[in-house]
Amino acid sequence: MSRSLITFTSDFGTREQYVGAVKGVLLSINPVAEVVDLSHDVPSHDVLAGAFTVVGSCPLFPSDTVHLVVVDPGVGSARRAIIASTERHQYVAPDNGVLSLLMEREKVSRVVSVEAEHYYRHPVSSTFHARDIFAPVAAYLAKGVDILKFGPEISDYKKLVLPPQKQLDDGSIEGFILHIDKFGNATTSFTPSDLIGGETGRPKSGFKVGDVKVDHRVEYYSDGAGQEVFYLTGSSGYVEIAAFKQSAARLLNLRRGKKVQLVP
Amino acid sequence: MSRSLITFTSDFGTREQYVGAVKGVLLSINPVAEVVDLSHDVPSHDVLAGAFTVVGSCPLFPSDTVHLVVVDPGVGSARRAIIASTERHQYVAPDNGVLSLLMEREKVSRVVSVEAEHYYRHPVSSTFHARDIFAPVAAYLAKGVDILKFGPEISDYKKLVLPPQKQLDDGSIEGFILHIDKFGNATTSFTPSDLIGGETGRPKSGFKVGDVKVDHRVEYYSDGAGQEVFYLTGSSGYVEIAAFKQSAARLLNLRRGKKVQLVP
Amino acid sequence: MSRSLITFTSDFGTREQYVGAVKGVLLSINPVAEVVDLSHDVPSHDVLAGAFTVVGSCPLFPSDTVHLVVVDPGVGSARRAIIASTERHQYVAPDNGVLSLLMEREKVSRVVSVEAEHYYRHPVSSTFHARDIFAPVAAYLAKGVDILKFGPEISDYKKLVLPPQKQLDDGSIEGFILHIDKFGNATTSFTPSDLIGGETGRPKSGFKVGDVKVDHRVEYYSDGAGQEVFYLTGSSGYVEIAAFKQSAARLLNLRRGKKVQLVP
Repeated sequence: MSRSLITFTSDFGTREQYVGAVKGVLLSINPVAEVVDLSHDVPSHDVLAGAFTVVGSCPLFPSDTVHLVVVDPGVGSARRAIIASTERHQYVAPDNGVLSLLMEREKVSRVVSVEAEHYYRHPVSSTFHARDIFAPVAAYLAKGVDILKFGPEISDYKKLVLPPQKQLDDGSIEGFILHIDKFGNATTSFTPSDLIGGETGRPKSGFKVGDVKVDHRVEYYSDGAGQEVFYLTGSSGYVEIAAFKQSAARLLNLRRGKKVQLVP
Repeated sequence: MSRSLITFTSDFGTREQYVGAVKGVLLSINPVAEVVDLSHDVPSHDVLAGAFTVVGSCPLFPSDTVHLVVVDPGVGSARRAIIASTERHQYVAPDNGVLSLLMEREKVSRVVSVEAEHYYRHPVSSTFHARDIFAPVAAYLAKGVDILKFGPEISDYKKLVLPPQKQLDDGSIEGFILHIDKFGNATTSFTPSDLIGGETGRPKSGFKVGDVKVDHRVEYYSDGAGQEVFYLTGSSGYVEIAAFKQSAARLLNLRRGKKVQLVP
Repeated sequence: MSRSLITFTSDFGTREQYVGAVKGVLLSINPVAEVVDLSHDVPSHDVLAGAFTVVGSCPLFPSDTVHLVVVDPGVGSARRAIIASTERHQYVAPDNGVLSLLMEREKVSRVVSVEAEHYYRHPVSSTFHARDIFAPVAAYLAKGVDILKFGPEISDYKKLVLPPQKQLDDGSIEGFILHIDKFGNATTSFTPSDLIGGETGRPKSGFKVGDVKVDHRVEYYSDGAGQEVFYLTGSSGYVEIAAFKQSAARLLNLRRGKKVQLVP
């Protein structure tokens, strides 16, 4: 029996019993599984941050990996548990949009609402569905149980709706900060193609963040050594505002959701 | 040779060499072991928090798992190293009570004081017994070395003594906060059976925490969306005081050990 | 095919997609690899702290382990990627000195500058060489690709230069704080042989830290229970200044780099 990979992403932190409990259930049902920690420090209840972690790491895994993703502020409510399958992978998560950035980028072949309670761990608690529902489902999937055994196919799964970019009268485009990472690098909602003006073809000269202009574009962080702040293409395919060995977020007082303008 | 599972729980944090050093020793002695991280962020020296992590996760693992638990403020002192075996698992830990919540819940078949120094890593340092004593012992146990090879059986191992519940004159029962988790949920020392009055059969109307009454009982976190704070049965079998997508601990200024009253 | 071990140390933190992305690449190229987390909480861009983690944990792993070490403030700049092989292990890291404490202690048989771009993940991003260069190289090394396939041997790899100890006029020796751990224990740049006066043979009476004398030497942390602060031989082979169940760093206002005197 060859080993099967199960990745595990959550907002559980690593101070408590939660991560260990889920691993225990995964390995009890599927003793040859290899459980791979992606992140357990997604900010509490932060579905968008979880979605960002998932899209930036899960697609890089080998075929047949099962991804368990638990950022679940609605635990115990009417929100469903879902399984989404792409060409190469299967994802188990609450139906709250935490898979939606991924689903925009990967071709999803099927989404199922998990309803087959005989796969659950009983009694099912009201507060810890990761242990009692999501983990058993992921473990059985990784053992080869067919996705359709877990419940009916659905198409009305939840998507995160991100604010759209807005064309302003002065020719600039308003977007926002999608994510701030550990180093203080700020991922914007803009892609490199926005910098050259997208379809209209008018290149932009840089960003305005509040009163500050960020107009130095570099290729590498270290190219910006002489600058206070600069921008570049980040590894996730979005444009980042960054600083060399410093936190751009702190220097410019950036927070996720803050508006930034791409100026002509 | 089939793989063997070793879980690893500690208060080492993940900023330093400690966790890696222990894993290196485990895998050098037992190259087919699968080392599974449970938590390394047990608060420093906090034996009770470690005990809480252990009891909430270790029993969920498959049979024959070896659990290595190192929260060891007395490293190098006269405190013993012990191995405890239950029906399905073996635990390696300092003899300071970190296994005692587990031992109340699981049937312990044997406890041994580790004394067989030929299993240690030499020279044994004075400050890092996890690397030099606990890890080698766990690795050899997982290889199948019999527990009685490590030392004599003992019965005077240390237990944590938690403050007992106290019946107050006004009919309420005084307990305390056992644990506060990452989300700010506060686990009390009360179980659901206390809520219905235990053996005396007089149901309670809620909690008093300082001057605040917490009297809204829910089944799921999300049921409490309209309430500031509420209580419910947590996944570890105790009653929790919680808030929806907020920290009840911050809202009510709760800390571990704080007294709470279950009122008639 | 037997499994191969790849350890992974970084300053990526565990809040984002970075750790998961690297693991995905490692396992896609080398599906039988066992990826072992050492630390991902090396302080951001802190090459010396990374070097300290590496030297304290990597050498303890079994033969043929590949160690992936990414603390890389110069990502994307002209700094090279290197592979260093010792008698038993291979290390993949940026050429910035993060392996230099290790190289002082272990016999290094060969250092190679990584230049064979056909092993990289393409397109190579400018900001995430861990995913696009270091991880693929580590995965192929663990599959058995010969180190010389990755590039030419070099000898001018970078070393961290630590400040030397200084003999003062009053007979004391000035050193510094190398590292402060999670518990607040402060590792000094002195070894036990310095305490007995090294080659000159004049034993020292303790430390001076600012205006405070630390002159109580113990063997175990718990021996120092009655003292405010004390010193002892730490597990990494250096002398530590510590306190019992307290942070010596906080009590004495120590930071890394702070000067301390070993006094006659």
